[in-house]
Amino acid sequence: MKLATLKNDTLDGRLVVVSRDLERATEASAIAPNLLAALQDWSRCEPLLRQLYQALNAGQAQDAFDFDPAQAAAPLPRAPQWCDASAFLNHGRLMEKAFNTDPIPDMDTIPVMYQGASDDFLGASEDIPLPDEAHGIDFEGEFGVIVQQVPMACPPELALRRIALVVQINDVSLRGFGPREMRTGFGFLHAKPSSSFAPVAVTPDELGPAWEDARVKLPLHIDYNGQWFGHPNGAEMNFGFDRLIAHAALTRKLSAGTVIGSGTVSNADRAAGSACIAERRAIELIEKGKSTTPFMHFGDRVRMQATAADGSAPFGVIDQRIVKAPAPTV
Amino acid sequence: MKLATLKNDTLDGRLVVVSRDLERATEASAIAPNLLAALQDWSRCEPLLRQLYQALNAGQAQDAFDFDPAQAAAPLPRAPQWCDASAFLNHGRLMEKAFNTDPIPDMDTIPVMYQGASDDFLGASEDIPLPDEAHGIDFEGEFGVIVQQVPMACPPELALRRIALVVQINDVSLRGFGPREMRTGFGFLHAKPSSSFAPVAVTPDELGPAWEDARVKLPLHIDYNGQWFGHPNGAEMNFGFDRLIAHAALTRKLSAGTVIGSGTVSNADRAAGSACIAERRAIELIEKGKSTTPFMHFGDRVRMQATAADGSAPFGVIDQRIVKAPAPTV
Repeated sequence: MKLATLKNDTLDGRLVVVSRDLERATEASAIAPNLLAALQDWSRCEPLLRQLYQALNAGQAQDAFDFDPAQAAAPLPRAPQWCDASAFLNHGRLMEKAFNTDPIPDMDTIPVMYQGASDDFLGASEDIPLPDEAHGIDFEGEFGVIVQQVPMACPPELALRRIALVVQINDVSLRGFGPREMRTGFGFLHAKPSSSFAPVAVTPDELGPAWEDARVKLPLHIDYNGQWFGHPNGAEMNFGFDRLIAHAALTRKLSAGTVIGSGTVSNADRAAGSACIAERRAIELIEKGKSTTPFMHFGDRVRMQATAADGSAPFGVIDQRIVKAPAPTV
Repeated sequence: MKLATLKNDTLDGRLVVVSRDLERATEASAIAPNLLAALQDWSRCEPLLRQLYQALNAGQAQDAFDFDPAQAAAPLPRAPQWCDASAFLNHGRLMEKAFNTDPIPDMDTIPVMYQGASDDFLGASEDIPLPDEAHGIDFEGEFGVIVQQVPMACPPELALRRIALVVQINDVSLRGFGPREMRTGFGFLHAKPSSSFAPVAVTPDELGPAWEDARVKLPLHIDYNGQWFGHPNGAEMNFGFDRLIAHAALTRKLSAGTVIGSGTVSNADRAAGSACIAERRAIELIEKGKSTTPFMHFGDRVRMQATAADGSAPFGVIDQRIVKAPAPTV
């Protein structure tokens, strides 16, 4: 099943069911006004949404309309929590070199995860407004999951059953702040502005054999200003989403609609390229003694697409431009 | 003006206006269904709520009822963001000693701040469910502000005008996780379960001369299991809330209803005591070579009350018990 959110005059937008080929959509407001409400009552809503999805795919949904992914908001424009891991250790190790930070203790056995802002997620085609090119603007291609409510101290095997949807994310990052914010020990704040989401959230079954071991085993194709940048595969994630959810929930409940991210997809094989500029810069530093790829400028574009075995894009496509934020007024 | 939230069957609860003496309340649902909605439309709602407040204080509000602070939810049971600083440097320096962590670079000139979970705030009299006494359970007495929407890169002088309400907070902390989570650089996650809020949020003018320089210049009285623990004053905050809001907003907008915390209130004068156990333990370590005060056990209680010059408690009282969380089931 595939779901998307279109904008209306509410913070949560309106829920639509999208056909498997992303060509058509139909309103789901008779089932739930928005995706957050559906997730809060998932055991009731999920089978009803699935019926609608089957009818839509069969060309039998009433009031179906052409789906324009450029009109999609993030599946959850606001979410209760956004906890983002760094679950590809290949990336983490390269970033330690790039940031010249101390090795993280126990990174092989305990996931590292930061809490990010979840009140202002961007849609797949929305411009990314930022105040200053000097902040070291970067993209990060990731996968994520959206959960039903998860109780405090939930073990991984129970956490797995609470995964409602899988998503594809651009975790926009400002590298100029990262090293200092890490050294404070308080974690990322300036370094992590609003994240963006591919247009469509999908149920795990929709990914077929590409959903295995609570991982998305698909290549994530990254193009930067129209050039290939990388296609690392989600299969190399060192912790599955079941482990990441359990980690996030150890001392708190996770409200329905919480989003858990994988961190930048990264593969040991350097031929796979990278899903963020900072990682390429780290590799340049290691291989050539110097980073040569600059961070993003206003006007630069990034395109991200997970690609299934049949060549399709199960989540649709993220294609965004960096722009200068307007001057602050109130 | 004083506002509170009573529980109903929605995530945001229902908004009530509370009399200055906290004795009476009246429904504000004709103005806004809940506090979050009021903050999203504050320029319309604030004068209407203030009229109701004046009528209530004059004994002229229709349908007024006795206010029971024990029934209050957090003013915002869910907030868009929760960014908590460590703006009392006396506390920060003591914690560096207690955690044996490296000094934070630039702590004197740049606020340190972490992003916490904001989807599940507790009311002032609610039990605090936690999974394990071995995690080093602690309280932290703080002040905070709730803002209207703040634009990205907002300067402090503009930020000051976006403060809608002032609140009093118990930022529950699990000290067993703090040092490791700080060393990862990713910040606090396990170390920061749900925070709790005093029953009443107040407009800055309600504090009279105790609101000055964007600080709450009141002593915060902490009792632990019925014994005095401290009464540090908010006046010694090294950064005002205007600076803290501007810091939080440098690379992101803050949605209306975002909560910005001061961090543990802490004074250089040791006779003022402490607003958290970890700080007392750090002082014990420094003064006696060893920490002797244990962290909290299930059943332990903490009471927190900011006290005005006339002896009143402008925010009401936090009085909470630590309990064992139920086993996770779904």
